[in-house]
Amino acid sequence: MAQQKGKITTQSENFPQWYQDVIREGDLAETAKVVKGCMVIKPHGYAIWEKIQSELDQQFKATGHQNAYFPLLIPKSFITKEAEHVEGFAPELAVVTHAGGKQLEEGEEYVVRPTSETIIGHFFAKWVDSYRDLPLLINQWANVIRWELHTRLFLRTTEFLWQEGHTAHATHEEAHEEVLHILDLYADFAENTMAVPVIRGLKTEAERFAGALSTYCIEAMMRDGKALQMGTSHDLGQNFGRAFNVTFQNENKQTDFVWQTSWGVSTRLIGGLIMTHSDDTGLILPPKMAPIQTVIVPIFRKAHERETVMETATKLCAELNDAGVVIKLDDREGKRPGEKYYEWERKGVPLRLELGPRDIASGEVMSKLRVAEEKQKLPLDTLTQAIPQMLEDFQGALFERAVRFREENTVQLDSWDDFVDTFKEGESKFVWAHWDGQAESEAKIKEETGATIRSIPLAGQGPAPEPGQCIKSGNPSKQRVLFAKSY
Amino acid sequence: MAQQKGKITTQSENFPQWYQDVIREGDLAETAKVVKGCMVIKPHGYAIWEKIQSELDQQFKATGHQNAYFPLLIPKSFITKEAEHVEGFAPELAVVTHAGGKQLEEGEEYVVRPTSETIIGHFFAKWVDSYRDLPLLINQWANVIRWELHTRLFLRTTEFLWQEGHTAHATHEEAHEEVLHILDLYADFAENTMAVPVIRGLKTEAERFAGALSTYCIEAMMRDGKALQMGTSHDLGQNFGRAFNVTFQNENKQTDFVWQTSWGVSTRLIGGLIMTHSDDTGLILPPKMAPIQTVIVPIFRKAHERETVMETATKLCAELNDAGVVIKLDDREGKRPGEKYYEWERKGVPLRLELGPRDIASGEVMSKLRVAEEKQKLPLDTLTQAIPQMLEDFQGALFERAVRFREENTVQLDSWDDFVDTFKEGESKFVWAHWDGQAESEAKIKEETGATIRSIPLAGQGPAPEPGQCIKSGNPSKQRVLFAKSY
Repeated sequence: MAQQKGKITTQSENFPQWYQDVIREGDLAETAKVVKGCMVIKPHGYAIWEKIQSELDQQFKATGHQNAYFPLLIPKSFITKEAEHVEGFAPELAVVTHAGGKQLEEGEEYVVRPTSETIIGHFFAKWVDSYRDLPLLINQWANVIRWELHTRLFLRTTEFLWQEGHTAHATHEEAHEEVLHILDLYADFAENTMAVPVIRGLKTEAERFAGALSTYCIEAMMRDGKALQMGTSHDLGQNFGRAFNVTFQNENKQTDFVWQTSWGVSTRLIGGLIMTHSDDTGLILPPKMAPIQTVIVPIFRKAHERETVMETATKLCAELNDAGVVIKLDDREGKRPGEKYYEWERKGVPLRLELGPRDIASGEVMSKLRVAEEKQKLPLDTLTQAIPQMLEDFQGALFERAVRFREENTVQLDSWDDFVDTFKEGESKFVWAHWDGQAESEAKIKEETGATIRSIPLAGQGPAPEPGQCIKSGNPSKQRVLFAKSY
Repeated sequence: MAQQKGKITTQSENFPQWYQDVIREGDLAETAKVVKGCMVIKPHGYAIWEKIQSELDQQFKATGHQNAYFPLLIPKSFITKEAEHVEGFAPELAVVTHAGGKQLEEGEEYVVRPTSETIIGHFFAKWVDSYRDLPLLINQWANVIRWELHTRLFLRTTEFLWQEGHTAHATHEEAHEEVLHILDLYADFAENTMAVPVIRGLKTEAERFAGALSTYCIEAMMRDGKALQMGTSHDLGQNFGRAFNVTFQNENKQTDFVWQTSWGVSTRLIGGLIMTHSDDTGLILPPKMAPIQTVIVPIFRKAHERETVMETATKLCAELNDAGVVIKLDDREGKRPGEKYYEWERKGVPLRLELGPRDIASGEVMSKLRVAEEKQKLPLDTLTQAIPQMLEDFQGALFERAVRFREENTVQLDSWDDFVDTFKEGESKFVWAHWDGQAESEAKIKEETGATIRSIPLAGQGPAPEPGQCIKSGNPSKQRVLFAKSY
């Protein structure tokens, strides 16, 4: 479909096109085209990624993790050392075969990292000798490449930016605690900072990370009813420890392999943010994710008006900045106020203030929240209290709205016909249904409906466990699991 | 040479080995070995890089630059579009020829970015239509790969981390102002934050960036008298604008190519920091670059002593933290105070406080600056004023020491014999000498002495211009230029 500049297709008309339009009109990113499946993250999109980075980085550090950096290139032989890992990643690898003007020898080729368990395992083996060296809690901010056939901006791109945590522990119990701790950290971040409600759960074997004992995830509902996996946390057991010989002497002076975890979130989160909150007018950003939280648009016709307005606007800007509001005074010349409103709406700025000479005379300013129907007059002299409160309320309202939307689009189903009907023709909801725990049933369901098991919910994350019968096979089941179509 | 753990070779004995030892003992980084010429940046080293990033990023943004992200992979054909650019970079490229399980077609191969002028030029062409879209001020934090034959931790590695600024302007004058503005920004950062004095100058044609009209640089003296290029800022003229057809309509409605700049600093800065300040005991960090500025080591034998000491230490820590000092209380059990002193000295922590029961009783604490000969007692009740001041003084003292060292090792020479003698057997100083401006003389000097022209100094950065005779050819010269051996 041709992209028409300036136009945003409605969600109901064509959701995937709406998504692309919102990104283009919000000036967030564009498809690189000349580099297969890659994207350029434009300044407004990258500023959102910086918000994500800064908040998560602080939380990782507060919980004892340290950043480090490992090579982009990984010896091709490393990838093959963990049997399931190579099976999962081999089809997606980009391979460097020539360098420095020469063809590399057979055993000297490199892959561009698709994820770093292997190269980090290699170094952990050098760094760990004793239980005293554990736990080792490392995080890396990096780019990775996975050669994907079907790509979509932010959601699935050949190259993406992410953080990958890699930790090593003396016991399985401690490693497993780390896995769940990080899952909670991700969930709290999604809900409290991104205003995106998520369900915490365990992946089935079919959906598990290649090489992990178990994979936990957070799943969110997009506005088309599909699920987006927003983050994963893997219990690697001793699989990579064995593959890379990461041994240590425990307190009883016995040699053992370390227990490892890995976990990550990526620029995909930006896609999730867009598809949770935005509307047919374009991007909507929750204040905690907004590179600009409030914009002031000055309005004037004559020179003496300009002076008064700019003076008040500048003062207001400084006061609100001091009150902790990330604010921008849009003083660009040669653009009409209406054009500015339009631009900032499409860029998802949560709150707009319009300030003209008459407002100043009456001690007021016109305000417009990004999702409000009506503008609202605010007294100028209480803005430093009122605006932080409005932004906080707006953050909360977006979260509540997303929770409501998810509730309205979540069902418990016990009939296969209803299940099939729910997932017909590209439609999706969150469906809690019984499953017999068999990969065969899971595969059949996927084949016949396109829906997959997003996760087996952790306690309190789904309906209370109750015995039932698998929606597909009719075999006994202990609890309902979460089905949806997914990105 | 074998690396002996725990031992630091002296600078005078073997400077390159000293450098490696300081990095190993400071736990900053290690050679990856399994990935040719690459390094692993360990947490303490990466924390220094984060300091560099955070300070520079703030300064770039304060001057109107925005961050964005462009693909790691660049179509191989792009590199050849600018004739000098391909000549400069072709020998250093890593090439992806296989991806997604298949060999890529002839024209579909990618290089891993060695720098991003080409791919960014391609996108600038799409983004710029009119003079109203200019200036375009973009920065990217990224990894790059240049296949190097001889590598050295931080200073020259196959992969390194850097920032690359890329800007486009309507006039050459404005672009040139940007180039010099960034050079000043880099110099201020080096001197005021890293405490590394630098000389600002212009590169000769032989040392210029491949594809630039002119390259400006900052050069610093390392403790072996050699020069390190710490940052470069390039005036690209319209070279890349022409190669990638980046045109715009100017105010007179004429179509013209944009004028571009690019500029970068990298993880190499960490190498410069080490070789400017550190000594035979190991790393020394200026407070503004130190991930930990002050460490408190508690001293006690008995349980009741432990309680008193830890209580005071914890309180002190909180107070100093509030006073803006980045402080760590080293409360690790099972390590003697002496072991802790040793470790933090090697990690370059500027200030150590030793706190025992007797100190507390007398209302004092023992302090030791990283380069002081003697310990000094400080009254506990004035620490929140005293320590920020001590750190500020220490920052200043390191800068002054580096300036003095550079002065002591800088000479003006007019005799070729003296010049040859100065650069004999691996030795180097900063030498101001006359040069006739000819590439031929420059090449002969390099060949016969190993010294290169580090830069033609900007006004005030070297001896006042005066006519003279080229130190090699005897031809007329207008001013002295800076010679040194370099990294």
